[in-house]
Amino acid sequence: MKELLIQLNDQSPKYKQIYERVRSLIEESVLPKNTKLPSIRQLAAILHVSRNTTLIAYAQLLAEGYIRSEEKRGYFVEAFEPIHLHQTLPTKSIMQKKEKPIIVDFRAGTVDQQAFPLKAWRRCSNEVLKEDMVYTYGEHQGDHLLRSQLSRYLLQSRGIQTTSEHIIIGSSTQQLLMHLSLFLKNRFSSVAVENPGYDGARLVFQLHGFHLHPVKIGIKGLSLEHLGKTPSKLVYLTPSHQFPTGVTMPVPERHQLLKWAETHNGFIIEDDYDSEFRYKQHPIPALLSLQHGARVIYLGTFSKAFIPSIRLSYMVLPQILIKPYLERFTGIEQCTSSIHQRTMGRFMEQGHWDSHIRKMRTTYKQKMHTLVTCLQNTFGETIEIIGPQSGLYVLVKIQGSTKEDELIQLALSLGVKVYPTSHYFLKQEEGTFIKLGFSNLSIEQIQLGVQLLKQAWRF
Amino acid sequence: MKELLIQLNDQSPKYKQIYERVRSLIEESVLPKNTKLPSIRQLAAILHVSRNTTLIAYAQLLAEGYIRSEEKRGYFVEAFEPIHLHQTLPTKSIMQKKEKPIIVDFRAGTVDQQAFPLKAWRRCSNEVLKEDMVYTYGEHQGDHLLRSQLSRYLLQSRGIQTTSEHIIIGSSTQQLLMHLSLFLKNRFSSVAVENPGYDGARLVFQLHGFHLHPVKIGIKGLSLEHLGKTPSKLVYLTPSHQFPTGVTMPVPERHQLLKWAETHNGFIIEDDYDSEFRYKQHPIPALLSLQHGARVIYLGTFSKAFIPSIRLSYMVLPQILIKPYLERFTGIEQCTSSIHQRTMGRFMEQGHWDSHIRKMRTTYKQKMHTLVTCLQNTFGETIEIIGPQSGLYVLVKIQGSTKEDELIQLALSLGVKVYPTSHYFLKQEEGTFIKLGFSNLSIEQIQLGVQLLKQAWRF
Repeated sequence: MKELLIQLNDQSPKYKQIYERVRSLIEESVLPKNTKLPSIRQLAAILHVSRNTTLIAYAQLLAEGYIRSEEKRGYFVEAFEPIHLHQTLPTKSIMQKKEKPIIVDFRAGTVDQQAFPLKAWRRCSNEVLKEDMVYTYGEHQGDHLLRSQLSRYLLQSRGIQTTSEHIIIGSSTQQLLMHLSLFLKNRFSSVAVENPGYDGARLVFQLHGFHLHPVKIGIKGLSLEHLGKTPSKLVYLTPSHQFPTGVTMPVPERHQLLKWAETHNGFIIEDDYDSEFRYKQHPIPALLSLQHGARVIYLGTFSKAFIPSIRLSYMVLPQILIKPYLERFTGIEQCTSSIHQRTMGRFMEQGHWDSHIRKMRTTYKQKMHTLVTCLQNTFGETIEIIGPQSGLYVLVKIQGSTKEDELIQLALSLGVKVYPTSHYFLKQEEGTFIKLGFSNLSIEQIQLGVQLLKQAWRF
Repeated sequence: MKELLIQLNDQSPKYKQIYERVRSLIEESVLPKNTKLPSIRQLAAILHVSRNTTLIAYAQLLAEGYIRSEEKRGYFVEAFEPIHLHQTLPTKSIMQKKEKPIIVDFRAGTVDQQAFPLKAWRRCSNEVLKEDMVYTYGEHQGDHLLRSQLSRYLLQSRGIQTTSEHIIIGSSTQQLLMHLSLFLKNRFSSVAVENPGYDGARLVFQLHGFHLHPVKIGIKGLSLEHLGKTPSKLVYLTPSHQFPTGVTMPVPERHQLLKWAETHNGFIIEDDYDSEFRYKQHPIPALLSLQHGARVIYLGTFSKAFIPSIRLSYMVLPQILIKPYLERFTGIEQCTSSIHQRTMGRFMEQGHWDSHIRKMRTTYKQKMHTLVTCLQNTFGETIEIIGPQSGLYVLVKIQGSTKEDELIQLALSLGVKVYPTSHYFLKQEEGTFIKLGFSNLSIEQIQLGVQLLKQAWRF
């Protein structure tokens, strides 16, 4: 492919020269639609440049739609429509703009779109639209079918023995925490929270006037020693996959924590937001499952394991709280779509939920493995990977003095979006932690993303 | 139909004897499936009893599934399946049980199921399921398409000039009031509320620690004189169709109220929950539409005019509040299904919403007319009908000393469910008010219901 035998000069970055050359060859139709381009390795060899140089040039062409990548086949020229292009692209190349297009987005809290069981969900949803309940406000505590399916699922997957009478449906973890805050604020003036921890939960407690006591996170999760030193009798935590560090609280510590709640007449709010995805061992039993009559309020959500747009979460209240809770909220209508609730009930009843979770566990396990392997191979010991045993993201601890902001900007300059963690900390820790999610990235995108990060960070 | 020539005795109520005779004729297959029965009038003439007597007997047979009513054709014998019957019916007749089956339910807050545009909604919903937004958390303030459609609709239908930037989507009036309470409680310690008024709103304010100042309702809605005597600078009201009395605040009073808010640096929370259904005149413009920069927080809902199960409401914030509100709730996720939001956006965009509202206005107008005419013809001056100009229910004020509970029980004894209003009052008024909704009743059911009420109440 002699058109690509470019004479590279030193006046601008080499990847930019390659990008511009290929782009103009496509715009001038010298390289027509569907032409197969040389691989990243081949082009690097032809031009005597590093593979990273050709990789970045291709990534840019990909992002702008000049070329496409076909799995295991390589890169191909896309259809070029000059008129359309003039409308959507500025006259100067995007390369010269400050804001890069995003090539790989390591956002956590996304969902694998390819794997979503759209047909089964739509079928259940359309069935539900024929039911009379569509015309009503729905059950106060949440749809009974969904609650009964949840009680079955919680036993099977988390060892939690409960009944639909103890389950309250809500639209999100935050919405349920709002109700809990209103319910508990007369008995408790403060709440102990993890540090680092989920800022969205802290915000809800603050909005309701709770005083916050940050408690350190160690390798066994929330430090029970520190918890004991706070005056709080109420604690909010994520014991199974600590948010955001990913550590897990072992069983002996769980028993100690349950004991703490009993001794103090306190309550534990256990947020089990992504327990569905554990890759290396069987899930550790939920706090709620460890002790009969445990003083635990258990929270779960469909946002991570299914989709966030239906806004569907749930909580399990202990026996001693269920009656006063329901009494307190008599007259407050359920705020979650009863159509989605019933649809999820049918979806679970028909077995789609179990198979979806099984499938996603395999998919996400493979993605996690790819991300961790790529990171280790590329960065070696200059980084530490935290929390790869479960969940849909890892934290990367970076040695040295480079600040979070700078790392994010460097990544962005090559079109990679990575995420900060400093807002999870109430008191800043040593070192810099970057968050990388992968749920909606393909294996190839994960690989490309890590390569680009290496290029951007240069350590 | 000589089988129906029953010899009536005085040992039990006549309607009961007729009911039992017809029932056994059907059970013994003397009257086979699909036999046309004499009309209520004919049977009354044959047996020399009043029409109410035959009406109640038929109503009972209808409720138990022995006969069916076909519009404009009359009453027919239903298929009788003895085995099935033995399983579901107790050996003794339902007539002897304390709990009557409900024949006519005058519940408000229901929806006309026949008229629901199921196909268009399902089509929009299935289109939306193909969109990428299904896999995301959705926009913080609410779906942009829905907000832009709402701003168009609010201008057209309520004269409100606003932009999508001022609209916040929520899942229900109560949920939006919860957020407003959290937002406003630092500036206001009390709120003035209508008496009688919406108890669901009062409950939310109370949960958030507001002191309530009840303000009397007159024929022009909330008494501005009484409002002026309270220390509140925040007022929650339903000016267009006062809940539950149905009165409307005239335009001059609206201007006075706006002036009050301005003078006091206060805010008006205008709940416009069913303004879509006004039958006698053009809707009075919303408070928010009367003055540029009005200190009004406007609330609307899809629960009454569409369906409650999707849990979709909205509010319009004044310019001075929008920025601080959004700042306060940064980090709090939208809790309304973004699938339903986008579906409603498409539904409105494609014109289905406007035609649905037009159609429902005609349907509900006819039902309201039937209810009011029947009540007037049947009860004359012994009752007063309040609020027939708009909305989906009326209040019936009953003279005399019969208590609310007793009226409800008497109605129930003939299978009619009517609703109390005493929980809307913070201080009890003179007279007894019964609430009658009609949205999901047919014209025939409304007529039958009023006849049964006459029989039950006997005044």
